[in-house]
Amino acid sequence: MRTTIGWRADGPAAALRRAPLERRDLRPDDLAVRIDYCGVCHTDLHALRDHDGAAEHPLVPGHEFTGVVTETGPAVTRFRVGDRVAVGNIVDSCGECPMCRAGQENFCHAFPTLTYGGTDRQDGSTTLGGFSREYVVRDRFAYPLPPGLDPAAAAPLLCAGVTVWEPLHALGVGPGSRVAVAGLGGLGHLAVKMAVALGATASVISRSPDKADDARRLGAHGFIVSTDPEQLDSARDGFDIVIDTISTSHDLSPYLRLVALDGTLSHIGHLGPLTVETMDLLVGRKKLTSAGSGGRPATAAMLDFCADKGVTAEIELLPSSQVNEALDRLRRNDVRYRFVLDMSDLS
Amino acid sequence: MRTTIGWRADGPAAALRRAPLERRDLRPDDLAVRIDYCGVCHTDLHALRDHDGAAEHPLVPGHEFTGVVTETGPAVTRFRVGDRVAVGNIVDSCGECPMCRAGQENFCHAFPTLTYGGTDRQDGSTTLGGFSREYVVRDRFAYPLPPGLDPAAAAPLLCAGVTVWEPLHALGVGPGSRVAVAGLGGLGHLAVKMAVALGATASVISRSPDKADDARRLGAHGFIVSTDPEQLDSARDGFDIVIDTISTSHDLSPYLRLVALDGTLSHIGHLGPLTVETMDLLVGRKKLTSAGSGGRPATAAMLDFCADKGVTAEIELLPSSQVNEALDRLRRNDVRYRFVLDMSDLS
Repeated sequence: MRTTIGWRADGPAAALRRAPLERRDLRPDDLAVRIDYCGVCHTDLHALRDHDGAAEHPLVPGHEFTGVVTETGPAVTRFRVGDRVAVGNIVDSCGECPMCRAGQENFCHAFPTLTYGGTDRQDGSTTLGGFSREYVVRDRFAYPLPPGLDPAAAAPLLCAGVTVWEPLHALGVGPGSRVAVAGLGGLGHLAVKMAVALGATASVISRSPDKADDARRLGAHGFIVSTDPEQLDSARDGFDIVIDTISTSHDLSPYLRLVALDGTLSHIGHLGPLTVETMDLLVGRKKLTSAGSGGRPATAAMLDFCADKGVTAEIELLPSSQVNEALDRLRRNDVRYRFVLDMSDLS
Repeated sequence: MRTTIGWRADGPAAALRRAPLERRDLRPDDLAVRIDYCGVCHTDLHALRDHDGAAEHPLVPGHEFTGVVTETGPAVTRFRVGDRVAVGNIVDSCGECPMCRAGQENFCHAFPTLTYGGTDRQDGSTTLGGFSREYVVRDRFAYPLPPGLDPAAAAPLLCAGVTVWEPLHALGVGPGSRVAVAGLGGLGHLAVKMAVALGATASVISRSPDKADDARRLGAHGFIVSTDPEQLDSARDGFDIVIDTISTSHDLSPYLRLVALDGTLSHIGHLGPLTVETMDLLVGRKKLTSAGSGGRPATAAMLDFCADKGVTAEIELLPSSQVNEALDRLRRNDVRYRFVLDMSDLS
């Protein structure tokens, strides 16, 4: 085994504390990655505050990181020591099922191996995440980080980025598309940037009027205050796609009303059960869908697209020693728009 | 006013009884239609058994009928006395809103005028439906019944038919599409026939194995018994489109599992609130939608298509005097596959 250092929770709702972690010795197709930057995702909060007790402890969160290859197994051909790489929330999958064969390893019928809290397919161990200085990952699930992408601001692309990229891509967003993004947080701000970079017109829907300037700075063409019935009314049926990134359970009806005939509401901010009125879908033949994470081809394509268009996250970079503060502030939505931890203080 | 005869309910849950009804005198753009055949729809049952008391009484159901023009207003140019016509569940709309302008009068922002239980846009009266010998209808909402379509078997096309046509059409069903139809009733059997006529492969999902022969006779290529977990498992992710015509509230999860990557479940059999697990949509980016009735262009196109392909409903034709028996049997799902009332006994 190899030893590294990371930020670990020893029980539900415990603060993360700095601790040594073990990583596996490299298999033939493994890379060792020195993690430089890791984003802080809402999923990390959920895992840490898991009240069902389903999460195994000790728990090391973190599933959107960038770094540099420090060692390669003998069968690795796509990477060399010194290469810049990125890793997202999936580190393995069965590789055999129809979803894996379709390049949608995130939907693997045998369930993908998650970057933390997952079960390694070979030794059965529980994976420990990217809030640490080193990760050992199967080469298929590491991505070359294209030149020109800032490695800190690119880290959130690996989870938040691909989560918004997949629905934008699957729904065919491009020039002429009218996209609205509900909620301007980690997911939402990347949805705006990507939709605009794809050539769409984008509007932001937010309950916070004070985000209007930011929305425009990110490229949004319109801004709708979600608490203003008149603004909602005048935008009725106005968007081919509404990307709903709101991270709490909420009434979908006002957002479905904004969807145009045969358009789609993609609900990606929250994982609970969804209740909709059939009439809200029927009138206008509107579609409700969701998305999360991405497959290998989509992740690679998204990174290339972002490098080409200069899209990265708006981040607040903190030393990893401030991880607990970052989590607290994320819980209060006090971040514009994504925390990224600088892992160099773990050396 | 004009006087005709129809089948009328005088209170909630009352049996229909034969009674004289008044129809308005013809406006310039009105037709008088002698109703020959009227289908019996689940909506009629709901209206008659309305426990909220929202339905106005007296109530005359019936919103899918065919007949012959007997008189025309002076501004009518599209129809002449003696023409075969068909009328569905909408008899007027605002004509001005974006949905009306898009030819989706069924989604009119000012709400379409329903064929019964609706409020006439000019005199404020409550509309009385097609379980009667005569109807007076604005010419825009009557459709020429194409030659070659049997007028009794075509009557259900005007509600059930267009309700399945619209999602099939909007979702681009054609050669190569894999369609599954859940529930083989009035809607379902027409969905199978239309999907097959559009060139798709169609499968039926039913809890009744004894419907397998009927499904094949209707053109279905496959049959899945919904109570057999193995059959459901082997069909996982197998359909681009699942048309769910089941008329009661039910768990959508087993049906969403049958939808392929980026495919759609169109839920058209039931109007209550829908609850879905986000993960059932997320995994495979599956879409949930609904549809109901159709706009004028879609209704006309559907009738032409059905005439061209020889698609009509499988009906059990009863004299209108057996309307209460038809409703009772429909409530017990004892019909293959649509009751149509012959109105000639009202002369």
